[in-house]
Amino acid sequence: MDCKRALEATNGDFDLAIDYLRKKGIAKGEARSGRTAGQGIVEAYIHPGGRIGVLIEVSCETDFVARNEEFLHTVRDLAMQVAAAVPMAAIALTKDEVPAEKIAHELEIYKAQIEAEGKPAQIAEKIAQGKLDKYFQDVCLLEQPFIKDPKVKVREVVLELAGKLKENIQIRRFTRFALGE
Amino acid sequence: MDCKRALEATNGDFDLAIDYLRKKGIAKGEARSGRTAGQGIVEAYIHPGGRIGVLIEVSCETDFVARNEEFLHTVRDLAMQVAAAVPMAAIALTKDEVPAEKIAHELEIYKAQIEAEGKPAQIAEKIAQGKLDKYFQDVCLLEQPFIKDPKVKVREVVLELAGKLKENIQIRRFTRFALGE
Repeated sequence: MDCKRALEATNGDFDLAIDYLRKKGIAKGEARSGRTAGQGIVEAYIHPGGRIGVLIEVSCETDFVARNEEFLHTVRDLAMQVAAAVPMAAIALTKDEVPAEKIAHELEIYKAQIEAEGKPAQIAEKIAQGKLDKYFQDVCLLEQPFIKDPKVKVREVVLELAGKLKENIQIRRFTRFALGE
Repeated sequence: MDCKRALEATNGDFDLAIDYLRKKGIAKGEARSGRTAGQGIVEAYIHPGGRIGVLIEVSCETDFVARNEEFLHTVRDLAMQVAAAVPMAAIALTKDEVPAEKIAHELEIYKAQIEAEGKPAQIAEKIAQGKLDKYFQDVCLLEQPFIKDPKVKVREVVLELAGKLKENIQIRRFTRFALGE
């Protein structure tokens, strides 16, 4: 009832309604935590020696799959994959997450490299595209060759698992700490 | 020698020098990873059930302390502390890291609460400050009561350990994933 009144008072704005309720002393602020539906697992991997650590969240649809041995095993492999990545300033999940300035910056360098190597202009663009693809493979987890089977990309590993377990499986986020970075 | 030449060519700008070397095909880009001196450990904690995970980096000065049993034990406790925190939108290490808008927003709510409770204006500011201190205890790791001994703050636990082991010990960063957040 309080919630309904709060939403009415704030024309249906959820955040304002929370503030409204807090001001009235009704809602405990920050208690809602932007949760979405969905099951899954949060997994960590600490590389022996304790100088590199990874935290990863992989979602699925049911608690049943979240406890599936193959699901858990793949999540552990993915955490290990992130730990094994070359230490980059930042690594992204998808190509879309790589900032446009970073890509422009890379392309500028490739252009200068290609010129320095004296390659003909008509193949310059193709070479640059090849270098950019290689860059994405380095910095995007989903584009990387899977450590346990470098013939497939991480994207394909996730898709294959999703197909096998018949659920929407997604790497939601990950983070990697390297000591003193 | 290449590095010296690159730095000269770029008037000592380190980032430009790296670009310069990459364009010349000499340096492998992104290989430097902003490392600072210092030893320490990266530790993880996954709460049973796998719905909450924490990654934390704690620095010290020597490898000797980084392998010290009490140091490692405290780092594990700190990781557990972060996992135990009420799920906030974001939690910070220090008061300084809480955005000014967040603080202003809190104060506005406290003011309205105090008015709604009909408290006299002369004590309003004191009450608001008390509420803000409580807020910092909730959202800043260093201000939180230590889970293993709530009489002391996390800040004091770290300082005490530093004094005991005679090294500069710092929580450098931490991150907390809650499933579906």
